[in-house]
Amino acid sequence: MTVTETGPAALAARAEALDAADGLAALRDRFLLPKGVVYLDGNSLGALPAAVPAAVEDAVRRQWGTDLIRSWNDNDWWGAPLRIGDTIGRLIGAAPGQVACGDSTSVQLFNALTAAARLRPDRQVLLTDPDHFPTDQYIADSVARMLGLTVRRVPVGELADVLAAEGHRVAVAAYGPVDYRTGELADMAALTAAAHEVGALFLWDLCHAAGALPVGLDAIGADLAVGCGYKYLSGGPGAPAFIYVAERHQDAFDHAVTGWHGHAEPFAMQSTYAPAPGIARARIGTPPLLSMLALEAALTAFDGVDMAALRAKSLSLTGLFLDCADAMLDGLGFTVATPREPERRGSQVSLRHEHAYPIVQAHIERGFIGDMRAPDILRFGFNALYVTHRDVFAAVEALREITATGEYTDERFAVRSAVT
Amino acid sequence: MTVTETGPAALAARAEALDAADGLAALRDRFLLPKGVVYLDGNSLGALPAAVPAAVEDAVRRQWGTDLIRSWNDNDWWGAPLRIGDTIGRLIGAAPGQVACGDSTSVQLFNALTAAARLRPDRQVLLTDPDHFPTDQYIADSVARMLGLTVRRVPVGELADVLAAEGHRVAVAAYGPVDYRTGELADMAALTAAAHEVGALFLWDLCHAAGALPVGLDAIGADLAVGCGYKYLSGGPGAPAFIYVAERHQDAFDHAVTGWHGHAEPFAMQSTYAPAPGIARARIGTPPLLSMLALEAALTAFDGVDMAALRAKSLSLTGLFLDCADAMLDGLGFTVATPREPERRGSQVSLRHEHAYPIVQAHIERGFIGDMRAPDILRFGFNALYVTHRDVFAAVEALREITATGEYTDERFAVRSAVT
Repeated sequence: MTVTETGPAALAARAEALDAADGLAALRDRFLLPKGVVYLDGNSLGALPAAVPAAVEDAVRRQWGTDLIRSWNDNDWWGAPLRIGDTIGRLIGAAPGQVACGDSTSVQLFNALTAAARLRPDRQVLLTDPDHFPTDQYIADSVARMLGLTVRRVPVGELADVLAAEGHRVAVAAYGPVDYRTGELADMAALTAAAHEVGALFLWDLCHAAGALPVGLDAIGADLAVGCGYKYLSGGPGAPAFIYVAERHQDAFDHAVTGWHGHAEPFAMQSTYAPAPGIARARIGTPPLLSMLALEAALTAFDGVDMAALRAKSLSLTGLFLDCADAMLDGLGFTVATPREPERRGSQVSLRHEHAYPIVQAHIERGFIGDMRAPDILRFGFNALYVTHRDVFAAVEALREITATGEYTDERFAVRSAVT
Repeated sequence: MTVTETGPAALAARAEALDAADGLAALRDRFLLPKGVVYLDGNSLGALPAAVPAAVEDAVRRQWGTDLIRSWNDNDWWGAPLRIGDTIGRLIGAAPGQVACGDSTSVQLFNALTAAARLRPDRQVLLTDPDHFPTDQYIADSVARMLGLTVRRVPVGELADVLAAEGHRVAVAAYGPVDYRTGELADMAALTAAAHEVGALFLWDLCHAAGALPVGLDAIGADLAVGCGYKYLSGGPGAPAFIYVAERHQDAFDHAVTGWHGHAEPFAMQSTYAPAPGIARARIGTPPLLSMLALEAALTAFDGVDMAALRAKSLSLTGLFLDCADAMLDGLGFTVATPREPERRGSQVSLRHEHAYPIVQAHIERGFIGDMRAPDILRFGFNALYVTHRDVFAAVEALREITATGEYTDERFAVRSAVT
């Protein structure tokens, strides 16, 4: 097979061949995927791992129902945030003792940004991306307001230059490695180094990267990171988030939401906060254990999985999608929003189309679940643990049919739901 | 039966008679209580409501596993925080549209205190209780540090006097109606009025009150309140918390952790925060839905329950406990830490004993689950939805035997667990 074979039949054959040669294909059995669905929205809510239902039932009936309050000891509920933190740590290149699981990304961002600013008390500027996910921008503004800092929005493409020119005033740069709309992947190592070069810290929001590709936080000398548990980690709707604090910053990690679980002696019930040593100080209040234990069970889907192999399959999936789009969607009004260079894309491909909304709705009705982001982006996320190359081909083929036939113009696809 | 009949046999008979006459007795069937256990720790972690396992299984397998991302619309995940907030609202005397469910109590406290201080920008003092639960004190200190305020710790018993004398400098008083150690109940209406008299706001932490007794937030003119979902609300380990913002304060509610779910147009993905109208602005990030839907199912245990009737039964249980303790624990080294006047106690009785720790452990081994708080408090919480008067008698009888016989001195009860 050569690259010139780009007709639908050749692409279908290529998809079959790639699946046949896929060393990770068996991992799909670690998920409970509904029949008739090709799920390309794992970048928004991961599919249900097969280990979760029994784990949650155990958490509800035995741990809560039978063991009751004793579960804090007997089922080590107390240890869950750091135990699960370490499990996530393996997926993001963090040695043990640097990740705590809990709360939402918003809350973790708030604590991480506050602590970052306090680690650089002589600097007044907080850099973030004007295209960053909204919560990241809102929290940056809020922390800056409370601490008397200035937020400056600099596109990620200009960040290295701005850091070089004015970085001496920057306390922290807060960015995501993967643009949530276009799927563009930044050079984490280079940007982290550029910040360090001028004495600034870097806070990475890994929501669209954790579990999707190797992140290597320790290797790149990352300072702080946060991320959610419900996208590529497949921890369930609203699964707890996590925070990474590099070991060298932990003693001085001085955050905002100081709950009693992060106290050095939580059961001494003291009146003033004295942070626990190590990453334990990043714990906040009592975590939502049913959601957290679901996440823990979900993470077993990564057992034994090499993140480099997962990344290779992800690139194979997104690469095939781009090839299929080029060959099969030509002339139908689509443009590709995601960079074509493998090293510049995450585990997602985004297309633009002026009728993105009804096309996505029609696609979903056919069983291909992606999502859209206003005004014109169709997003397709590829979790390489359970998406196949045949899924990719079929998804593009359906897109072609929906668009070429005008199927999407049916009025039932035009009605907007509350949540899109 | 008269009050002079206080011997064990008479008390046992009284317990039986009270259970026989208990109009709420059937509510116990709404919980799945393990055999051989008398559960008196519902003030720390409520027992498992019978409606929860099926609801959680549905949330996992159907809503997450099958409906996947579509559940935000199709199963109204988006509406959950305010829908459940309204359900909690009924139990705390809040008309609809004033309660949002989500996050931990720590986070809700952080937002509530920040917003309270900003509602009184010309005032510099934040009052809280030196005996308040640790997180409440830590968060007060943290918010004050970030906003340049001063925290003053005033015991609840002195609060009215301090407000009268110096209240003109107070932005907000932050207290709990029930002391988590002694179970003492404050006069919420009088203290709220005392704060309002001098133009200050009141923030109530309802962790030990919500679901245990009528709170009547609207009736007392409360400003702000928070509380957790896992104590008397029985929502499961670490169940999401809630925040109450009185309608009159909502337009000016200007909080700290500004997540995208609280935005006026969340799906417009804007760069700057514009709060949603009404209580929706108190939403933060994506909530932990498995834990939140468990809480929603748990709250059905309150369906049709009159909070005044629940309070009457609670006082009957705690009153019987005190009578049993007086009659049966005399001379065994116990003192009662909880006020004897019904209007001054929550739904909890605390005893003090110099050997509190091993006594509680021995009690647990016999199937009577309470807990202890250092250094010397034995805590017994009474959820009137599922605790019986016979449970109360049996618990005190076991305490008597354990102490009188020295059973608790066995070395196996002396070993401290990680979490006590």
